[in-house]
Amino acid sequence: MTQPNAVHDQRVGVWFVGARGSVATTATLGALAMAAGLAPRTGLVSELPEVAVAGLPSLEGLVTGGHDILETPLAHRAQVLADSGVFPPSLVTTLADELAAADSRIRIAPRLGTQRENARAVEQDIRDFRAANDLDRVVVVDVSNTEPPVTPRPELDSLAALEEALDAGHAPLPTSSLYAYAAFRAGCPLVSFTPSPGATLGALTELAKEQALPWAGRDGKTGETLVKSALAPMFGTRALKVRSWASYNMLGGGDGQTLSDPRAALSKTTTKGAGLDAILGYHVDGPMHIDYVEDLGDWKTAWDNISFEGFLGTRMTMQFTWQGCDSALAAPLVIDLVRLAARAHERGENGVVGALAFFFKDPLGGIDHTLADQWRTLAQWCENLGASA
Amino acid sequence: MTQPNAVHDQRVGVWFVGARGSVATTATLGALAMAAGLAPRTGLVSELPEVAVAGLPSLEGLVTGGHDILETPLAHRAQVLADSGVFPPSLVTTLADELAAADSRIRIAPRLGTQRENARAVEQDIRDFRAANDLDRVVVVDVSNTEPPVTPRPELDSLAALEEALDAGHAPLPTSSLYAYAAFRAGCPLVSFTPSPGATLGALTELAKEQALPWAGRDGKTGETLVKSALAPMFGTRALKVRSWASYNMLGGGDGQTLSDPRAALSKTTTKGAGLDAILGYHVDGPMHIDYVEDLGDWKTAWDNISFEGFLGTRMTMQFTWQGCDSALAAPLVIDLVRLAARAHERGENGVVGALAFFFKDPLGGIDHTLADQWRTLAQWCENLGASA
Amino acid sequence: MTQPNAVHDQRVGVWFVGARGSVATTATLGALAMAAGLAPRTGLVSELPEVAVAGLPSLEGLVTGGHDILETPLAHRAQVLADSGVFPPSLVTTLADELAAADSRIRIAPRLGTQRENARAVEQDIRDFRAANDLDRVVVVDVSNTEPPVTPRPELDSLAALEEALDAGHAPLPTSSLYAYAAFRAGCPLVSFTPSPGATLGALTELAKEQALPWAGRDGKTGETLVKSALAPMFGTRALKVRSWASYNMLGGGDGQTLSDPRAALSKTTTKGAGLDAILGYHVDGPMHIDYVEDLGDWKTAWDNISFEGFLGTRMTMQFTWQGCDSALAAPLVIDLVRLAARAHERGENGVVGALAFFFKDPLGGIDHTLADQWRTLAQWCENLGASA
Amino acid sequence: MTQPNAVHDQRVGVWFVGARGSVATTATLGALAMAAGLAPRTGLVSELPEVAVAGLPSLEGLVTGGHDILETPLAHRAQVLADSGVFPPSLVTTLADELAAADSRIRIAPRLGTQRENARAVEQDIRDFRAANDLDRVVVVDVSNTEPPVTPRPELDSLAALEEALDAGHAPLPTSSLYAYAAFRAGCPLVSFTPSPGATLGALTELAKEQALPWAGRDGKTGETLVKSALAPMFGTRALKVRSWASYNMLGGGDGQTLSDPRAALSKTTTKGAGLDAILGYHVDGPMHIDYVEDLGDWKTAWDNISFEGFLGTRMTMQFTWQGCDSALAAPLVIDLVRLAARAHERGENGVVGALAFFFKDPLGGIDHTLADQWRTLAQWCENLGASA
Repeated sequence: MTQPNAVHDQRVGVWFVGARGSVATTATLGALAMAAGLAPRTGLVSELPEVAVAGLPSLEGLVTGGHDILETPLAHRAQVLADSGVFPPSLVTTLADELAAADSRIRIAPRLGTQRENARAVEQDIRDFRAANDLDRVVVVDVSNTEPPVTPRPELDSLAALEEALDAGHAPLPTSSLYAYAAFRAGCPLVSFTPSPGATLGALTELAKEQALPWAGRDGKTGETLVKSALAPMFGTRALKVRSWASYNMLGGGDGQTLSDPRAALSKTTTKGAGLDAILGYHVDGPMHIDYVEDLGDWKTAWDNISFEGFLGTRMTMQFTWQGCDSALAAPLVIDLVRLAARAHERGENGVVGALAFFFKDPLGGIDHTLADQWRTLAQWCENLGASA
Repeated sequence: MTQPNAVHDQRVGVWFVGARGSVATTATLGALAMAAGLAPRTGLVSELPEVAVAGLPSLEGLVTGGHDILETPLAHRAQVLADSGVFPPSLVTTLADELAAADSRIRIAPRLGTQRENARAVEQDIRDFRAANDLDRVVVVDVSNTEPPVTPRPELDSLAALEEALDAGHAPLPTSSLYAYAAFRAGCPLVSFTPSPGATLGALTELAKEQALPWAGRDGKTGETLVKSALAPMFGTRALKVRSWASYNMLGGGDGQTLSDPRAALSKTTTKGAGLDAILGYHVDGPMHIDYVEDLGDWKTAWDNISFEGFLGTRMTMQFTWQGCDSALAAPLVIDLVRLAARAHERGENGVVGALAFFFKDPLGGIDHTLADQWRTLAQWCENLGASA
Repeated sequence: MTQPNAVHDQRVGVWFVGARGSVATTATLGALAMAAGLAPRTGLVSELPEVAVAGLPSLEGLVTGGHDILETPLAHRAQVLADSGVFPPSLVTTLADELAAADSRIRIAPRLGTQRENARAVEQDIRDFRAANDLDRVVVVDVSNTEPPVTPRPELDSLAALEEALDAGHAPLPTSSLYAYAAFRAGCPLVSFTPSPGATLGALTELAKEQALPWAGRDGKTGETLVKSALAPMFGTRALKVRSWASYNMLGGGDGQTLSDPRAALSKTTTKGAGLDAILGYHVDGPMHIDYVEDLGDWKTAWDNISFEGFLGTRMTMQFTWQGCDSALAAPLVIDLVRLAARAHERGENGVVGALAFFFKDPLGGIDHTLADQWRTLAQWCENLGASA
Repeated sequence: MTQPNAVHDQRVGVWFVGARGSVATTATLGALAMAAGLAPRTGLVSELPEVAVAGLPSLEGLVTGGHDILETPLAHRAQVLADSGVFPPSLVTTLADELAAADSRIRIAPRLGTQRENARAVEQDIRDFRAANDLDRVVVVDVSNTEPPVTPRPELDSLAALEEALDAGHAPLPTSSLYAYAAFRAGCPLVSFTPSPGATLGALTELAKEQALPWAGRDGKTGETLVKSALAPMFGTRALKVRSWASYNMLGGGDGQTLSDPRAALSKTTTKGAGLDAILGYHVDGPMHIDYVEDLGDWKTAWDNISFEGFLGTRMTMQFTWQGCDSALAAPLVIDLVRLAARAHERGENGVVGALAFFFKDPLGGIDHTLADQWRTLAQWCENLGASA
């Protein structure tokens, strides 16, 4: 696949919130491997001609860094992932120096007295990263653990009220939103790859607009929901009535463990469930479970049972099984989103970028859940971005 | 679902080739049941607003007839289908009179001396049907058994050569093409719902053009291939490389038995296989079988195993099972195609209607196998048809 | 299948607790249909030569009755089940008179002041049924809704304490145990087809022994657990280590609705889960869900995902899908158990009959969960019963 | 797992026919790894107490060698298998010296002028192997490519006729039978792990008896057929009538390629199909395919669809998917069979050992295909072998 419109003279930083997690580790190693010509670009949507036409920053110009609460070196985490089959072990050995360099750009997440102080420290770390690495721009990407939904509060709705609360030493923000706040203050576009609140709170949306920054979210569409958004329109356009759609998910990695907490799972099952009804135009019943099965590691197995009704009321069924590697599915999308968000920033877009709905379970600013329509919207947007060069 | 643009003053005839088979019987009974308000319009694409906008003939105005080589009354066949769960037995009882009337409009397929004589007899039967029932137009629909591919011969390529061969008492045409010939001679649009040669031969295509008639084909996309055309684009637009795609089909009804003949199956596996490579843009390996399993009756079970490769070469799999009732999936599409072909005829379209690709495994005149793109093309065409009224 | 040792001169009553539920209705209709020669004996274990050798009462001699809290006539319930495909509708019409007669033998479950009074009323109903129908013996079968597990209490542990509590006007018994109490007082063998406490409480076990009555339980092994008990030994005897076993169940009928109450489901998931660890000799992790999906009606769909480890640590998987009709699977086992319990009673067996483990998810008195071993034990016991004649 | 009865002072040779194939390579590496304490004994039936009781030769005393037509070193083949996930790559590195030593004991299969000369050369190689390695006995194991069935000929039926034909310079034997001839002439027990003719020809059976040697076969039961032999008895003992059983197999390794030749596949589908009818007692219809899908490598994916009938004729279905690594499933059985055949030889058993039916798709000398019964027979035989010490 060629990339004729790539802008090679850009240096783009990626600041991961959760920089030592599975997704960030896989994305970091993958970007290094592809830049070094050690791996094909399979899975990268941004390498397809319809998307590359936007004129995206090259993989060679990406520089990663970020925050994490753990100190485990990247190389160690990469080895664990390689052992469980996420990528070939040889990559970890060959890229040992580059991984060590990437690791040196990760800082321990600040845990100071007040949220105001923490937000400032995060913002400063990002600014330091941009300056130290001579970057044209930095995209902040949230790939940390899923948080529960927030309870509505006035200081989450207006920027002025939020600033006042922070000044007063209060701590109204969930962590994902604190990072969104710091990212915007540092002048960085944001990608929300988890279902956490992030920038969806009114106060943050206001801040992004004020700073004229683009952002995108939320919750990367990597597996079962991706299949749903491809299959459900088939039932719709064939006038087949879906009677029930059961969704069973098993996952053993870090995200699986987080989601075994029912409060966190609520964020996830909400974003997972929304699309089906939206695509079909009516409510579809059916159980949805996300189970933590330690044995499966980073490999996710999903099974869906669809019961539908056709001509003269005849009942039929379809079932599918999805056996995918969660990090291997998420990591390329993260790289795609960084390149696209960087390009949008360069072109001066701001606010939620609805044209990126293709990548998300809960597409903010996008009205469509149908995968094919999301693809067309994306391709059109990319063509415009490229043309505007 | 509303149908604001329906043209209620049209009487449209349906002339089935294979009028006592499962698909024709189900379509006949279904049209009667829906016209009588005894069944919902589930499964009818032509009732969706995006298609109904074309201004289609109403279900109430449809009149069925056709040829078959069997004498078994429609009601008998309908009872057998009802017993195996294709539709509720009560419909057969309630609509006994209407079924008997429909049965009286079916004639035994002529089997005379020469093809010329047979073609004339078929043409005359269709003309009689149109006159006797005071029909505005008649759409001929081939739902008979699948035939093997034909060996190329000069008299199949040019109309003049064909006429000469027929005059000479030769029999160059496969049955499906003989019916296409008669249909066009009688001034009727044609729908090829099977993978048989039908009107795809050069001589027939020429005749359709000469007669300024629209026709559409081929091989109704009812099950596994439908799912493929919805799923394969997902892999494509996500830059996931499909390594192999295995397709196993089991079917017990009449079509299953026909396809247990490897020569006939060749037509089917050819049309089934073509789409995948076209959608993905590269050749995908994998076994494809259609097995006759008497026990399953009209219920088709398909299982597909998709092996694909993602980021950094990680291998993953997806599998699906489809348990559908073949006739219940095919019958509404037949009714949709009749309404759309009649409308195209009314509007003066002629030649292969590529905009109907949505309905076919082997979409003639259409360049796209991607279901979502086919749907958009269809909706656009319908909007134009409606606007031109 | 022949039944050479059948004792034709016996009249055996079946007293259903839950006589108008799906299982009792299907068993009642089925027994009538087979006795009338209208249906084959498929699904009846008691018709296999290895079991028939016991010398079992004939189907022709079975007379059904029972208690229910609903007044809906049997014929009505049977029609609903026939419409959803559990059995052919024609049986309901043909056997209308016999169903009406069976319905007339069902009484509304007494709901009087005290448990003592209720127990006496139930006992009297059973005695009346036996006398009125000139029965040699009556087997009481619990097929009512699943109850939650009981909290231990002294009066459930000893018969004397129980009698004292009942005399004092207390109500210590769950309903299933109250019926067990009444059954034993009336001199009847008992079959516990649900996971409810029933006769497993110490006080009831004591009563059965005192009355020298045989009883069997619990929780009919009809679907997914049946498959587990056939498959798990394969992994065990091949020295393959099962790493996780996930069990997802969907069910729409009455039992599905009951089990959507987590307290009742607890009884079921406990009996379902016990066998696997017992067969393999170590604890196996994995989620287990029973979901109520109204759309599925009496049809249960289960999906299991088994992850296992072989030679040199290689990880492999097996998955199965089970699409069964719950009542159609349970009803013949109920008839089998009635015939076997009647024969055990005739031969003077008493206490829990461990040899009937083959039929139960939670085999009381049986030590083995391996299906093949349970089958051998059953066959041996039947041979002994036959030989003792 | 303990192994109290192991006879540690025995040195047992394994002579592989096909010593550089996937199964032999995996078995060789696995035996070395387990003897060195580098791998657990998962998958070894001979380590289960019920089998170990026979008093089997230890893994430490096994010495491998054999014939192959390829010269690729074992270490190279092992690396390829490790890369495709059959076992951990680290084992190949750690055991490099031991693999090289094993490789030095493999000879290129002789391809001389006549079968007589070839047979003598094979026999001499085996005798040399036994002498050079100071072995108490050698078990010959056929794990080479599957051959087509043979056409009956008089010289295959009687030993005298065979010897005469060989003396006359004829070549009546298929390769597998030539190796069986040489093995028996060399005084070695034989294990036929493929469906090839091997020792099943009358002349060879006669030779084994004359030499008083035990042998066992045929066609290792590793995957889908294993599951069938565990599941089919469940339908049988529950009196559920199996209406059809479809078996679809995909395999990419060497065996898959061999079986893409329809003549060779005939041997395999014959042995695979026999068991089901034998277990159920009636003929069951259904397609059976073995497809070569290169992409899958040594990983076999099978999908079975079982349609069955229960009470009152209700139709239900069960489906299973098996994703197993063929060599990892076969290799431990090969080691088990070597230990058991060596022990049988030591105890003076001769002729076909029917008690080893548990291991084979087409159990020669065993009458039962039911897995649980085969297991009981094996355990009983092992107990006797142990007791006779």
